[in-house]
Amino acid sequence: MQAIEIIQKKRDNKPLLKEEINFIIKNFQNNNIPNYQMSAFLMAICINGMSEEETSWLTDSMLYSGEVVIHKNASGPLIDKHSTGGVGDKISIPLAPTLAACGLFVPMIAGRGLGHTGGTLDKLEAIPGFRTDLSLEEYKNQVAKIGCVIMGQTKDIAPADKVIYALRDVSGTVESIPLISSSIMSKKLAEGIDGLVLDVKFGSGAFMKELEKARMLASTMVKIGAHMGKKITACLTSMDQPLGTMIGNSLEIIESIDILRGDGPSDSVELTLILGAEMLVLAHKVGSFEEGKALVKEKLHNGQAFERFVHMVEAQGGDISYILEPSRFRVASQRIVIEALEDTHIAHIDCRTLGHVVSLLGGGRMKLTDTINPSVGLELHAKIGDFISKGQALCTIHSDNENEELLEKVKNAFSYASHAVPKPVLYQQRISTN
Amino acid sequence: MQAIEIIQKKRDNKPLLKEEINFIIKNFQNNNIPNYQMSAFLMAICINGMSEEETSWLTDSMLYSGEVVIHKNASGPLIDKHSTGGVGDKISIPLAPTLAACGLFVPMIAGRGLGHTGGTLDKLEAIPGFRTDLSLEEYKNQVAKIGCVIMGQTKDIAPADKVIYALRDVSGTVESIPLISSSIMSKKLAEGIDGLVLDVKFGSGAFMKELEKARMLASTMVKIGAHMGKKITACLTSMDQPLGTMIGNSLEIIESIDILRGDGPSDSVELTLILGAEMLVLAHKVGSFEEGKALVKEKLHNGQAFERFVHMVEAQGGDISYILEPSRFRVASQRIVIEALEDTHIAHIDCRTLGHVVSLLGGGRMKLTDTINPSVGLELHAKIGDFISKGQALCTIHSDNENEELLEKVKNAFSYASHAVPKPVLYQQRISTN
Repeated sequence: MQAIEIIQKKRDNKPLLKEEINFIIKNFQNNNIPNYQMSAFLMAICINGMSEEETSWLTDSMLYSGEVVIHKNASGPLIDKHSTGGVGDKISIPLAPTLAACGLFVPMIAGRGLGHTGGTLDKLEAIPGFRTDLSLEEYKNQVAKIGCVIMGQTKDIAPADKVIYALRDVSGTVESIPLISSSIMSKKLAEGIDGLVLDVKFGSGAFMKELEKARMLASTMVKIGAHMGKKITACLTSMDQPLGTMIGNSLEIIESIDILRGDGPSDSVELTLILGAEMLVLAHKVGSFEEGKALVKEKLHNGQAFERFVHMVEAQGGDISYILEPSRFRVASQRIVIEALEDTHIAHIDCRTLGHVVSLLGGGRMKLTDTINPSVGLELHAKIGDFISKGQALCTIHSDNENEELLEKVKNAFSYASHAVPKPVLYQQRISTN
Repeated sequence: MQAIEIIQKKRDNKPLLKEEINFIIKNFQNNNIPNYQMSAFLMAICINGMSEEETSWLTDSMLYSGEVVIHKNASGPLIDKHSTGGVGDKISIPLAPTLAACGLFVPMIAGRGLGHTGGTLDKLEAIPGFRTDLSLEEYKNQVAKIGCVIMGQTKDIAPADKVIYALRDVSGTVESIPLISSSIMSKKLAEGIDGLVLDVKFGSGAFMKELEKARMLASTMVKIGAHMGKKITACLTSMDQPLGTMIGNSLEIIESIDILRGDGPSDSVELTLILGAEMLVLAHKVGSFEEGKALVKEKLHNGQAFERFVHMVEAQGGDISYILEPSRFRVASQRIVIEALEDTHIAHIDCRTLGHVVSLLGGGRMKLTDTINPSVGLELHAKIGDFISKGQALCTIHSDNENEELLEKVKNAFSYASHAVPKPVLYQQRISTN
């Protein structure tokens, strides 16, 4: 078998065999295939696509490039959630401990932020002392003991995906449904889960702007799961405006604590209930979606979800005094309040711009080596469909610098209407192996 | 401007700007764009193609990556010929001196063989002492003095094409009409020519098997020439069987000498007349194609073409005693004659296999660093459409080793028919800027 012949097959849009895909992945991982051949192969996939079978084989190949965790001591269903990412999406943080409180085991491996979206690990690291670099041993022990963990990808988890992703990032080959799907699914399946709920975002602030593309991505990942004998539910949810009210690392931890205490912004809470309910349905912990929502709500209100979060933070070395008393989080030196100039309805929020602004304030990364300022960010006081009166606060910028340009960007991110505007529908569609 | 954004544009099939193509070529040449980005870009071109304008800009960019020769001392039209390559195609060798004898200046830069096709430079190097590595100064002087030269690509001629071609070869991105066209045309236009005749091969032994694809390639190159203000004529000629009777380096020199002495196999002679006539038409040296053929024929028969060849060989350091007395060329140690097993008509000759056999005998290269045995090769005694009687010689293998496997390959390369078979038509179509 020769790499160049396999590359030419994909270039000419001919079907690849399982062994051919394995050959490429294995030999790239072992440095036997140079970057310039791999990037040509990835580009051919970007343009010509991959069949359902090819995508499953690719996932399988990346999955078994490393360890597939076995949670011997977890005495219940192992269910995880993954989001394709958006602005203000902190739902993993309240969700994992809440579902652990419901009796599930949530072995979550999460990522860092890049560009306009934040990363769950960066947010958790806003808690002083919080460790996201657990060993596989610590990871398994915590899942068994606490019922949930949120940590970073280790070198043992889908290592082929790690090197391929790094090359995609610099070769213009990120945007491809089979490549995105197999990357996500290989990492998630390596966690040793029984089922997975996918939160696939669409809309202006999402990676996939069109619902149709998001649906294709969701459906591809559900099919991969089915091929692998796993139960997968994908929820297509709107990312036409930031989720919740807080964008920025410690700000999103504060919002997560609010949710875990039975409070929090209505859309963040709603999404926590939706994704949690789907996870409970997959685990057969409840008989229906509505029953699932009720159970999640109960755990958020009776303190058990919050309690589990405190345990998780403690187990991962975080200083729980910040969780118990969120006012301890350092506040940025400046808080600039943007006010409404007249009585008006909010028609549109440029989600992507707000995400970028948070990055530029120092709260995110433009490149992977950038360091993060956890205190900066944005606080929204109104969302699409809200009516606001002249002089009412629209948004607060938490910044450690003066920056007129960013202030203008934030102001321009809001559009208005003189008439009433409907609130966007959050949960659009469900695709499932069930 | 960022390389990755230009790569993504081509991936998404959006039109590129002239500056974007220039940016990529210039920065790749200067090592500012890594191989893995360039190969992804080349793969996107392979699959999504390039518009006529984009292909011209690419050619222009590669052309001006090096020197464009100015032949100050050539006192007549500078016309060259290029063939897309085939088995037994030695026509450049008789053609250049013949057209010089007709008053043209032929500044030919040629290539080496790889895979199943031979290379003009390898063939000429079968003449002891023949130098193909002239300096640009020597090259220009010889064109002015002798009227013709055949040498290799120097580092000054389209250097960007050279590095891009090397990468295409190892990244599965050779087969692309815009990439092939721009590669050929940038090198040829760098010769400082007024006009160019392209011999674009189609058929089983050609790079482009289908006439339709060969026509697209021809038409693309003619359009590039037109964009650059050059006169180009492309001749679509058949490569369904080897050209002439000799395949192998010194054997093809011997056939070239035959042609130059007014003899030689009918198809090789015919193609020399056709391509020569088209070159004369482009140079306005004759009023019609037929007049051009007559002039070429005259030069082949009156000794002037041969005389010019002797001058060329002498100027490039070759031992002319071999040219004057071709029996001096070393003959391979074994000559195995394959005979017809019955009275039959030749229906088909597997051109590509015969080319490969010559390579495997030691007469060609599988990789660029292989050394060549100039004496080995094949001598055909019959071609498609010929009737041969039982026991009549079909083919002679010139070899320096016993090799039963290759003998079988050669035998199996011929197919027969009990009925008469028409001879293939050599010259199929003409596409020209005229």
